[in-house]
Amino acid sequence: MEPKNHEYLMGRFVENRFVFRQSFVIRSYEIGPDKTATMETLMNLLQETALNHVASSGVGGNGFGATREMSIRKLIWVVTRILVQVDKYSSWGDLVEIDTWVDAAGKNGMRRDWVIRDFNTQKIITRATSTWAMMDRETRRLSKIPDEVKNEVQPFYVNRASIPPQNSDSEKIQKLTHETAHIMRTGLAPRWSDMDANQHVNNVKYIGWILESVPMKILEDYNLTSMILEYRRECRQSNVLESLTSMRPRTCGDDGEITNENSDLECTHLLRMEDDHAEIVRARSVWNFKKP
Amino acid sequence: MEPKNHEYLMGRFVENRFVFRQSFVIRSYEIGPDKTATMETLMNLLQETALNHVASSGVGGNGFGATREMSIRKLIWVVTRILVQVDKYSSWGDLVEIDTWVDAAGKNGMRRDWVIRDFNTQKIITRATSTWAMMDRETRRLSKIPDEVKNEVQPFYVNRASIPPQNSDSEKIQKLTHETAHIMRTGLAPRWSDMDANQHVNNVKYIGWILESVPMKILEDYNLTSMILEYRRECRQSNVLESLTSMRPRTCGDDGEITNENSDLECTHLLRMEDDHAEIVRARSVWNFKKP
Repeated sequence: MEPKNHEYLMGRFVENRFVFRQSFVIRSYEIGPDKTATMETLMNLLQETALNHVASSGVGGNGFGATREMSIRKLIWVVTRILVQVDKYSSWGDLVEIDTWVDAAGKNGMRRDWVIRDFNTQKIITRATSTWAMMDRETRRLSKIPDEVKNEVQPFYVNRASIPPQNSDSEKIQKLTHETAHIMRTGLAPRWSDMDANQHVNNVKYIGWILESVPMKILEDYNLTSMILEYRRECRQSNVLESLTSMRPRTCGDDGEITNENSDLECTHLLRMEDDHAEIVRARSVWNFKKP
Repeated sequence: MEPKNHEYLMGRFVENRFVFRQSFVIRSYEIGPDKTATMETLMNLLQETALNHVASSGVGGNGFGATREMSIRKLIWVVTRILVQVDKYSSWGDLVEIDTWVDAAGKNGMRRDWVIRDFNTQKIITRATSTWAMMDRETRRLSKIPDEVKNEVQPFYVNRASIPPQNSDSEKIQKLTHETAHIMRTGLAPRWSDMDANQHVNNVKYIGWILESVPMKILEDYNLTSMILEYRRECRQSNVLESLTSMRPRTCGDDGEITNENSDLECTHLLRMEDDHAEIVRARSVWNFKKP
């Protein structure tokens, strides 16, 4: 067995080391009831590619996604915003190829983009972009990017956008309340298996709770084509959460009444603490009616 | 890019087509708070290998794990028992190699075994065995194995055991009650994302609920070295579940008092419906104190 096979499983740099590329086969347990990969699966694969990018870059430290100079300073990256736009969901056994790269985002942030291609057609089937800030692991306060860290990451920066700025869903996400939400699910408790290696709820797990307040009929009859998440606060296992959702036809009014099943839907979501209503995640999703 | 790489990702037959072998890299989101692969991850990978085995065999039908003759007759395999024994849990980025094969189990059952090797050392790090029965997809009643199906699967049968019978934990799993359980968690509700392509709760998801009634201190300070699950009844999204656990030092009494933290623990579990207490899964687990 040649080492080449392992490299292929692990991912590799392409395009002058500006782009990191990894291939994945969609596994049977990564698909949902409609037999295609779920949004959680896509975000898991994006996370995996990002972490392998850092680990393969030669500047990786001992933390998840942290560089050496960050590890020395007890700094970690935290995601503040992620937008995923899906053209086509893959099925079990499909081979996908994910490209990822990074760029500056303002003075103290980093942008990370991805595209997912169907390997056989080489068509782009998903685009995603995210913004990251630097946090002190112990005080949990945001931090500037130290020059030493800038020196590590800047050689990898490339000015390229997976989603053109005009399509990047920059409209403010409204804050839902008990009054403006159409559906509210309370008593959502993280499970032990929702925790990651940092003893925090993994970013991706929030999607499952957000979808808990989306009506079953929408989950079944619509495709989730776009999702944007704004992370506001960390969540630990002892927290109990509430999931709120409001819905409206994409192009029409905002009374929440779904009059025409064939139109696209836009949902606004809020995940908050049950006790003091502190915001954890604001989100917006777009749903496309499945043609039978 | 050679097709060889894809074959490698998809798995292949070895040993005269009696054994199906697939390699996996442990992904970042498949590890738990202790940074090693979780029991759920192992069972997911076992399931994936089994399904690819059937799909690659040339007798695969249109269902998950079903043969052509089964699909024609609307028959499906259901797992009735699975035993997993773990010597060593892998970490993120580790490459594992899984072998699986099947054999007869009595007149109307099938046995499926697995071994997981650490690819680099080629040491066996996990062994597993399972028993399967045939069910009518519509009436949900157990069925005999039709001769046409026997003809499809028998050529693959091989008389080899991953776990020697004397180690196969054949002792009856006691049925827990409100009185005999030390810990009970109620109100466990399946999420939309727990459903599989058959609109049922995926077998592997039960592990998460079982662990919900295991004390945090055990989850943190002990390694789960063995788990046996007996599946009694299917579960749908509308069901609300209760998780019960009792514990005892492995070799001593059964009063549930943990007097010596350094001894191994044995837990008995029951997952049941909250309303009528109908049994869903009985389970037993063995926990080994982590040497610091």
